Amino acid sequence: MQTISENRCYGGVQGVYSHASKVCGVDMTFAVYMPPQAKDGPVPVLWYLSGLTCTHENAMTKAGLQEHAAEFGIAVVFPDTSPRGEGVANDDAYDLGQGAGFYVNATQAPWAPHFRMYDYVTKELRDLVQKNFAVNSRHGITGHSMGGHGALTLAMNEPDLYQSLSAFAPIAHPSQSDWGRKQLSAYLGDDESLWAAHDATLLVKSKGWKGDILIDQGASDQFLDLLKPEALAGALAEARIPSTFRMQEGYDHSYYFVSTFGWDHMAWHAERLLG
Amino acid sequence: MQTISENRCYGGVQGVYSHASKVCGVDMTFAVYMPPQAKDGPVPVLWYLSGLTCTHENAMTKAGLQEHAAEFGIAVVFPDTSPRGEGVANDDAYDLGQGAGFYVNATQAPWAPHFRMYDYVTKELRDLVQKNFAVNSRHGITGHSMGGHGALTLAMNEPDLYQSLSAFAPIAHPSQSDWGRKQLSAYLGDDESLWAAHDATLLVKSKGWKGDILIDQGASDQFLDLLKPEALAGALAEARIPSTFRMQEGYDHSYYFVSTFGWDHMAWHAERLLG
Repeated sequence: MQTISENRCYGGVQGVYSHASKVCGVDMTFAVYMPPQAKDGPVPVLWYLSGLTCTHENAMTKAGLQEHAAEFGIAVVFPDTSPRGEGVANDDAYDLGQGAGFYVNATQAPWAPHFRMYDYVTKELRDLVQKNFAVNSRHGITGHSMGGHGALTLAMNEPDLYQSLSAFAPIAHPSQSDWGRKQLSAYLGDDESLWAAHDATLLVKSKGWKGDILIDQGASDQFLDLLKPEALAGALAEARIPSTFRMQEGYDHSYYFVSTFGWDHMAWHAERLLG
Repeated sequence: MQTISENRCYGGVQGVYSHASKVCGVDMTFAVYMPPQAKDGPVPVLWYLSGLTCTHENAMTKAGLQEHAAEFGIAVVFPDTSPRGEGVANDDAYDLGQGAGFYVNATQAPWAPHFRMYDYVTKELRDLVQKNFAVNSRHGITGHSMGGHGALTLAMNEPDLYQSLSAFAPIAHPSQSDWGRKQLSAYLGDDESLWAAHDATLLVKSKGWKGDILIDQGASDQFLDLLKPEALAGALAEARIPSTFRMQEGYDHSYYFVSTFGWDHMAWHAERLLG
């Protein structure tokens, strides 16, 4: 693991690191915020998964989560959203290939060799963070847009790995959306039954979640047709899953929306990770 | 005035606007955050002046000030740092010309026709903001690096316009720094006596300030040799100006430093603008 940068921030350290990923077959960059409380012993971790086109950097610089992480004593990990670089397959579209890993393990050409973000986030990067940072085994997960999809699907598929769960404006029903059908088809093939494990709305019905879930969605989000929040909200209610689903009047899809509700999400995770 | 974008943020609105500037002779872009309290009547304004290479956007997206502005009910204006575009003089160096206006009115070729950021910020944009937004006549000013220099020098030169003053890692003594000598020479000419009105350390000695001043400076700032905080700290003490000058252990020059102490500065201004 190499250190790219470390900056003092709210009494803790915002770091950016890279490592040779075996899972993705390329060097991967990620960011970790360690709060000041980590000096006194291991702290819980919140995973923040980012959306389409993002790297580790967008939320790190724009979401304002460090302030809240320092308040509650929680580390935050910001993974990249896909493998990158020469030799890694890509597509001209912004929503496929590099920057658009969708948190699945691709099985199809040309994506299969590198696009393994499911294993990368749940196994390899998790192990690396556990080994190299003062964190304990209490992990929460959240994310925005494609990253909200990632948070929901990873948590519901791997309930032993995560103790708390939330999402900002998640892609809620990708198997029925243009933000999903193209990508799941490209990465996983045309057998739609294989897509169900990566669709939050379907997972709510099939596997559910062991705890409760917080979801915020801007009511003026410019991508409501693609995100399909109504499918997830309906499924959560139908499956009687303890959850708070908030339609936030006037908010759009931007980081202004994420940062506005960042404290609420950090507090939600803190209550479940520290309590 | 044209609206480029408006996003709901912490219950208020983060807007980006452009207008045809008479002072700068080009279209200028700026950002304004209006807190939710502005619905109930005019609110005070904090001017945030940015540093070298920045536009209106850097602090708007990275400094996290909206949260604090919404807490206290203060509008924040983020001007650009220079005129820009075709027909506007520039230099290959990052620290001269576009993105590096230094908050002076240039008198020298080729800068004089457009580089009039002093008048732009203190007069034209101020009038525009007063006319188009629900703000009252209580104005504070702050800024980072070159913008900290701008905040200090504009306030000390125009004490009737500003009721509160702070700075983050300001260029504190530009007439004796490579961040200053080149630019003041280019914009104002070689008569160094004309530079004194744009040097915070010299202004503290000559004009002083009617109120008190808050300054934060990272002790691990990579630009300490250029910023020369010791000159300003010494001058403030020597001139017996009520002030709080904090060397913050471990912090560098980045927005992680600015955001960490953003609440403190907003609270400082709130106490003086709302009190």
